[in-house]
Amino acid sequence: MKMTELFGRPSKTEGTDYATASHRFLTQAGYIRESTAGRYYLLPLGLKVHEKIAGVVRKHMDATGAQELVMPVLHPLSLWQETNRTTTTGFELMRVKDRRDFEFALGGTAEEMAVDLVRKFNISYKDLPFNIYQFSMKFRDEMRARGGLLRVREFVMKDAYSFSTEAQFKKIYQEMWEAYRAIFEELGLKVDVVAADNGYIGGEYCHEFISESPVGESRYFVDQRSNYAAHEDVATFQVDYKNLDEEFKALQEVDAVRGTTMEDGVKLHNLPLWQQTKDVVFFDEATKRYVLALIRGDFDVNETKLQHVANVYELRMATDEEVRDDLGSERGFVSPVGMVKRGNKTGYPVVIVADSSIRTVHNMYGGANKKNRDLVNINIDRDWKPDLEGDIALAQPGMLSRDGGELIERRGIEVGNIFQLGYHYTDLMHDAEYTDDKGQRQKYYMGCYGIGIGRTMAAIVESYHDDKGITWPENIAPFRVQLITLGTSEAVRAQAEELYFILTAAEVSVLYDNRDMRPGEKFADADLVGTPHRVVISEKTVTAGTYEYKQRTEPEAKQLKKEELLKLLGA
Amino acid sequence: MKMTELFGRPSKTEGTDYATASHRFLTQAGYIRESTAGRYYLLPLGLKVHEKIAGVVRKHMDATGAQELVMPVLHPLSLWQETNRTTTTGFELMRVKDRRDFEFALGGTAEEMAVDLVRKFNISYKDLPFNIYQFSMKFRDEMRARGGLLRVREFVMKDAYSFSTEAQFKKIYQEMWEAYRAIFEELGLKVDVVAADNGYIGGEYCHEFISESPVGESRYFVDQRSNYAAHEDVATFQVDYKNLDEEFKALQEVDAVRGTTMEDGVKLHNLPLWQQTKDVVFFDEATKRYVLALIRGDFDVNETKLQHVANVYELRMATDEEVRDDLGSERGFVSPVGMVKRGNKTGYPVVIVADSSIRTVHNMYGGANKKNRDLVNINIDRDWKPDLEGDIALAQPGMLSRDGGELIERRGIEVGNIFQLGYHYTDLMHDAEYTDDKGQRQKYYMGCYGIGIGRTMAAIVESYHDDKGITWPENIAPFRVQLITLGTSEAVRAQAEELYFILTAAEVSVLYDNRDMRPGEKFADADLVGTPHRVVISEKTVTAGTYEYKQRTEPEAKQLKKEELLKLLGA
Repeated sequence: MKMTELFGRPSKTEGTDYATASHRFLTQAGYIRESTAGRYYLLPLGLKVHEKIAGVVRKHMDATGAQELVMPVLHPLSLWQETNRTTTTGFELMRVKDRRDFEFALGGTAEEMAVDLVRKFNISYKDLPFNIYQFSMKFRDEMRARGGLLRVREFVMKDAYSFSTEAQFKKIYQEMWEAYRAIFEELGLKVDVVAADNGYIGGEYCHEFISESPVGESRYFVDQRSNYAAHEDVATFQVDYKNLDEEFKALQEVDAVRGTTMEDGVKLHNLPLWQQTKDVVFFDEATKRYVLALIRGDFDVNETKLQHVANVYELRMATDEEVRDDLGSERGFVSPVGMVKRGNKTGYPVVIVADSSIRTVHNMYGGANKKNRDLVNINIDRDWKPDLEGDIALAQPGMLSRDGGELIERRGIEVGNIFQLGYHYTDLMHDAEYTDDKGQRQKYYMGCYGIGIGRTMAAIVESYHDDKGITWPENIAPFRVQLITLGTSEAVRAQAEELYFILTAAEVSVLYDNRDMRPGEKFADADLVGTPHRVVISEKTVTAGTYEYKQRTEPEAKQLKKEELLKLLGA
Repeated sequence: MKMTELFGRPSKTEGTDYATASHRFLTQAGYIRESTAGRYYLLPLGLKVHEKIAGVVRKHMDATGAQELVMPVLHPLSLWQETNRTTTTGFELMRVKDRRDFEFALGGTAEEMAVDLVRKFNISYKDLPFNIYQFSMKFRDEMRARGGLLRVREFVMKDAYSFSTEAQFKKIYQEMWEAYRAIFEELGLKVDVVAADNGYIGGEYCHEFISESPVGESRYFVDQRSNYAAHEDVATFQVDYKNLDEEFKALQEVDAVRGTTMEDGVKLHNLPLWQQTKDVVFFDEATKRYVLALIRGDFDVNETKLQHVANVYELRMATDEEVRDDLGSERGFVSPVGMVKRGNKTGYPVVIVADSSIRTVHNMYGGANKKNRDLVNINIDRDWKPDLEGDIALAQPGMLSRDGGELIERRGIEVGNIFQLGYHYTDLMHDAEYTDDKGQRQKYYMGCYGIGIGRTMAAIVESYHDDKGITWPENIAPFRVQLITLGTSEAVRAQAEELYFILTAAEVSVLYDNRDMRPGEKFADADLVGTPHRVVISEKTVTAGTYEYKQRTEPEAKQLKKEELLKLLGA
């Protein structure tokens, strides 16, 4: 491709204020251009890279036996109503009506569509397991698009859906895990495989493939001594025992003229923070229940974990008025001891959830459900009983992982995920069944597996760039060679045309910068575009009978004979 | 691919009542499955064929120097408002709002998006001409979907947009014409290149590529003696002269107690149909004008031609009341002689449009704008004057083309079109300009070029099938060979596995029907799926040391030695 003919050439004046390297360089180099916020044109250069990435994904998906197909973009909304997803999706669904008032969802993910397709066929146990996937445009009505291709409203996702028995599932999950590792390895992208939250679906198998990057939105922890890696939502840690050798003392109510913070408690009682109870009052709008979460004073409540332990997915903080008027307590002085079972005014139930860390301390202190009154020597079981108990603690950097190493905090870009769906969709959707070997109808067990192609492209740029532009891995670059002429003499032009012809004939892809521009500008554009190899032809090289060659990532150019150059480029 | 592992196997019980061969066979053989009306899943078999067709289209587009990119699916509605297309598109636009009340159109075609992209760049005359294209999902809110992939509401279209000077346009158009011919030739699809109507955009260059088929929706005429082919909307024909040697006689009003049809006039006056005037009264809602169309009695008015001649694009028939109360005339007795210039009640103008055929007859007869009164010896210019004159006549089979041959009527499936846009979009959209060699800003001249991939797939099946199923051309078939085992003996299985391995290793694609089913069913499925080559392995062939081979389109199978078979299949 000659640069003079390329649609969407580099432009240094574009995107100079973009915050992330991928957004800036992909825009400046002519890979992408914004239409409206979060919706991008993939220009010819960008589409080439995008399709190479998709090709790698396809290759490894096919190798697992997964089968590619394509589903409609407009999903009958009735399917999403069948699974209650019109209100419960994490992303905002876009809806559209046709002229006959038939309502559709713009596909965000396609679990329902996959089930609806599969149930059109008579599937027997002999057909299981199988895995179907597609590359298709997905729509997310994100409140904020950001970072170019990092968070968009419209993008191509490879989404796969596996159908199997429950017993078969673990193997499929492992195969997809391995396929994903192979995909990102071939793409040159180092990823952490991070245990993540499965949302309201639950289940133990849910992993995100995250490319570490300071511009990523995913926060997670790793234990570098082991393979442990977990999203902040689900990270666990070892809880140390405190004063368990201390004898139980008598519960006592005392005056406590203090502020409402944890620090105020520490100061007043002159006792460690960890000995204080942290009492957080939530309200769940879905089930209309108060949730009083109890945790050791030096820890924080992890709302995601709390949701799963208490099965509450529409949590908000209770208001001061609710705490005072309905629960008869006082913010900053809330206590499980003597807490009402139901709201005094509303009658809404109160569920007390204790974090396991409560059992690592004796003789805790905390509020007494009255302003300026505290309790000391509070002990679980003796003075109060939780309704539910479990791990609802938020991990912090420096804590010890279950494997014994220190938890290191990382940020990164989620480029893929694999996800146990279990019976969630097959329970909610009718006829999502196969015939087993005894002729009985059985529900499928499902998994789903996504990779965002554009976001992966952005993540690669975040990993492969310097201050001048992109430094593509060889197999993803839109062209392998950038051929640059300096000056407009006929000898230079003729030699360049010859080399362009030879390389192209040998199927070495070349972006031939034949423009009449200053050398500095052409070099800068080559660095921006980021092809792995650069060849310069000038009066000087023609005279010397050499070719100036430079790798994108090497600082210095060298002069090569023609045969050396062709050999090096594999032509 | 083993048939036991294929998702979406043949099913004879599906789609038995579908009216078109492509709908029925593509469904039964497992290529497509309907989601909601006009929206289809492309199953693994179907996607393979779809992508092969897209590959052929891409190859020939790239060969012309056109550059592939991808545009967003959701178009800012503001762009469509810039060109008034929210109301004037031929297809019904689907709209969707996001959570911030920003309104989008679901892309139906992408002229505005292409212009909006191009105007983001500084384009100079040196960059012209260029042609950008994409494969992307298009949405049409069709009132009626029909015929499987023949008329759908959601489909992949290859749409290209050329930007050039006016002088450069004709060459680009010719190149695209040639590319399209090459594409359909490689796809094995015979097409007629048919002059078509350019709608409100006008211009002389507009052609549809139509695959002749009785199930197609496009009606057109060809002159088999020449290359002339034209859509019924625009077809022209030679008008024969009638009684031009007859002297002009005096205009006379006579009693005419008759019905209101043309035949009633013929009977009453005992004169030829062609001598009668046909007077058709329309009303144009856009410009609020009556349009009185005059044509020779043996011809019919072509509304598309009338639209262009009179520049009226929202025509409807005038009502009896309008004719009587506003125009002071009477249905069945309308005449241009003495017709009011404006409606008596509304004041709306009346435009009289004469078809050129009026000038092939002298002394016409027709109504007198009063019930049961006729005029005889009506002559144009002497007795009435048209406001506009031109070709507004509808061609009919058997008429003579401009090239002298008989017009033959054909029906077919429009699989592609090429289309002169001229300055239509660049006039309506701001900044749709390039810088010319004198530094002046100039508007682009545009063309657009579409191919529906799914419809092309259906058209191929309409051309390539028999009563048992599909008979794919070799280069489009999802697999080249269908390998069938009969019986379940170990010897049969082993030989089949060996052949499957050899062919697959030689990159001859094989659909291996390893199912334990009756021979008749397996043969029927093979015919349905329509791979070009069928190989059967049975106890008989194993014993004989041969392979049973049959071409899909040949009636008889033959026994081949292994070497013969492999050679024949190119392995």
